[in-house]
Amino acid sequence: MRGAVIHGPRDVRFEELPNPAIVAPTDALIRLSATCVCGSDLWPYRGANPIAAPTAMGHEYCGIVEEVGSAVRTVKRGQFVIGSFFASDNTCPHCKAGYQTSCQHRELVAGAQAPMLRVPLADGTLVATSDVPPDDLIPSLLTTSDVLGTGWFAADAAHVKAGKTVLVVGDGAVGLLAVLSARQMGAERIIAMSRHDTRQRLARGFGATDIVTERGDEGVARIKEMTKGIGVDSALECVGTQESMSQAIGSTRPGGFVSYVGVPHGVQLDGQDLFFRHVHLHGGPAPVRRYLPQLIELVWSRKIDPGKVFDLTLPLDQVAEGYRAMDERRAIKVLLQP
Amino acid sequence: MRGAVIHGPRDVRFEELPNPAIVAPTDALIRLSATCVCGSDLWPYRGANPIAAPTAMGHEYCGIVEEVGSAVRTVKRGQFVIGSFFASDNTCPHCKAGYQTSCQHRELVAGAQAPMLRVPLADGTLVATSDVPPDDLIPSLLTTSDVLGTGWFAADAAHVKAGKTVLVVGDGAVGLLAVLSARQMGAERIIAMSRHDTRQRLARGFGATDIVTERGDEGVARIKEMTKGIGVDSALECVGTQESMSQAIGSTRPGGFVSYVGVPHGVQLDGQDLFFRHVHLHGGPAPVRRYLPQLIELVWSRKIDPGKVFDLTLPLDQVAEGYRAMDERRAIKVLLQP
Repeated sequence: MRGAVIHGPRDVRFEELPNPAIVAPTDALIRLSATCVCGSDLWPYRGANPIAAPTAMGHEYCGIVEEVGSAVRTVKRGQFVIGSFFASDNTCPHCKAGYQTSCQHRELVAGAQAPMLRVPLADGTLVATSDVPPDDLIPSLLTTSDVLGTGWFAADAAHVKAGKTVLVVGDGAVGLLAVLSARQMGAERIIAMSRHDTRQRLARGFGATDIVTERGDEGVARIKEMTKGIGVDSALECVGTQESMSQAIGSTRPGGFVSYVGVPHGVQLDGQDLFFRHVHLHGGPAPVRRYLPQLIELVWSRKIDPGKVFDLTLPLDQVAEGYRAMDERRAIKVLLQP
Repeated sequence: MRGAVIHGPRDVRFEELPNPAIVAPTDALIRLSATCVCGSDLWPYRGANPIAAPTAMGHEYCGIVEEVGSAVRTVKRGQFVIGSFFASDNTCPHCKAGYQTSCQHRELVAGAQAPMLRVPLADGTLVATSDVPPDDLIPSLLTTSDVLGTGWFAADAAHVKAGKTVLVVGDGAVGLLAVLSARQMGAERIIAMSRHDTRQRLARGFGATDIVTERGDEGVARIKEMTKGIGVDSALECVGTQESMSQAIGSTRPGGFVSYVGVPHGVQLDGQDLFFRHVHLHGGPAPVRRYLPQLIELVWSRKIDPGKVFDLTLPLDQVAEGYRAMDERRAIKVLLQP
């Protein structure tokens, strides 16, 4: 088969790869219905992460089970399934605590920008839908695999609740779906930081009540002004840079909650500064598996339409153009059709 | 009057000071029943904080109200009162949210190592007991002013609950009272890190179930071993150094809670490391005012005896010896009698 392989910064190729096969008896093979490019794929693409060797890309996936290993019990051939970017056994103490992305046996899922994918720990990782979904639900179901689950975790980790004032830092697909998540959790006011017209519109469509275009100290000052000098109850940091983290922390009231779900790159926190800011801080790789059943149900019942974040759809063999479009911010998020 | 003044590292003098007086109409003057030396007083004493000018020391206090300003409504002359090291109005949005140490009008209380003290924002800051207490309750009541309130906040901020496994890093008075607090909140297992025999005994007396003497990476490895590789549910960092913070974070399970209540000195947190550890982090100057009524009641009804942390009592004029004894770790905490 052919799939996406990164060879170096801005060098993604669609090229021949070995066909995936069952390796461990707990594996499953999936024929992908759709896959996509993740904001985090741009870190190596932009040279922010080293690329030691050519690497098969992609970790967001949904599709039909083609084959399962001999030890797989609950997942069956022919089912439509969705899983997280970290495979997890869903039985270890960390999984039971709801932190499946810190599973004691976790394995990164990689190579999903391809027609077929091997998923380890299939029983713990994959969640099947009640039936094979209609085509128009596929994009939204695909989002539950990572980008929606990550936005949802951002809102959950920042204790978003009914009536609260919420700030979302970052207008990428995760930030936009963090807006959707905050709305679902009943936030009264949702402030999205964005300078991009199309993203602002999508943010408003997902439930943002206010848009702030200022950044850095000016952005923090604007948020403080909008909240009578108090700061927001919850700030959701959906980027992973020092600037975005500082904006989130600086905009939050004492006793408020800051979540961070973008992999931090070069972020340093000064202990004494954090101490006197009095905020709660929680983040990490989103434990998508915890939320999958709930998010699948919200999509299945058409209560939410997170698939709107895909504003460009390409055939899988044009994956390189998908990376370019996201890198240049011509597209918010690119859906790839195998 | 005469009180404690720091002139430079290891230079605390008991010397003549102006008598405190009502400055603002919201002030109260208190005649101190007892005061003490705080672990945080050792930062400037040891040269870790700069001392720009001679500074009156002390911020833990309880005593009898001598005089109140014209705007004071609830606090009355003759009452026995206790307050926090930050004066607060207890009406602003941050106070209402329970973060009185981030009060929009907060003022540091200073100069409590003296016979008389001016407390700003008396109505918001001071809590009166139902009656003048018997002498034997004074030490325990004094602890509610800071050291117990801070240990309590450490346990509360780290979500200590019934049945949980808790680690306390730091065997100073705050750490020891964090052990007491965790016990009150129903923790099943309380691991105290300590190498000092008398402190270990006191920790056990307050409810510690296990003592760990290893530090740094060895300490973390020991905690992991004791918790079947999982880590603790809650880690209470009661020191403020990089080493203690790293021990607390490194010993906590993914999804667990780390609190920090010692003013961080030179502590830097790497965003990416924190991200993959998946812990919750919360701390800051303990909002003692929030807990005062509850803690006073626990002392008053003799359910707890936090005053046991005072293992040396000196007349106030020997305050310099009090600092020396704590600096050299000859004493856990020094009570001063005006």
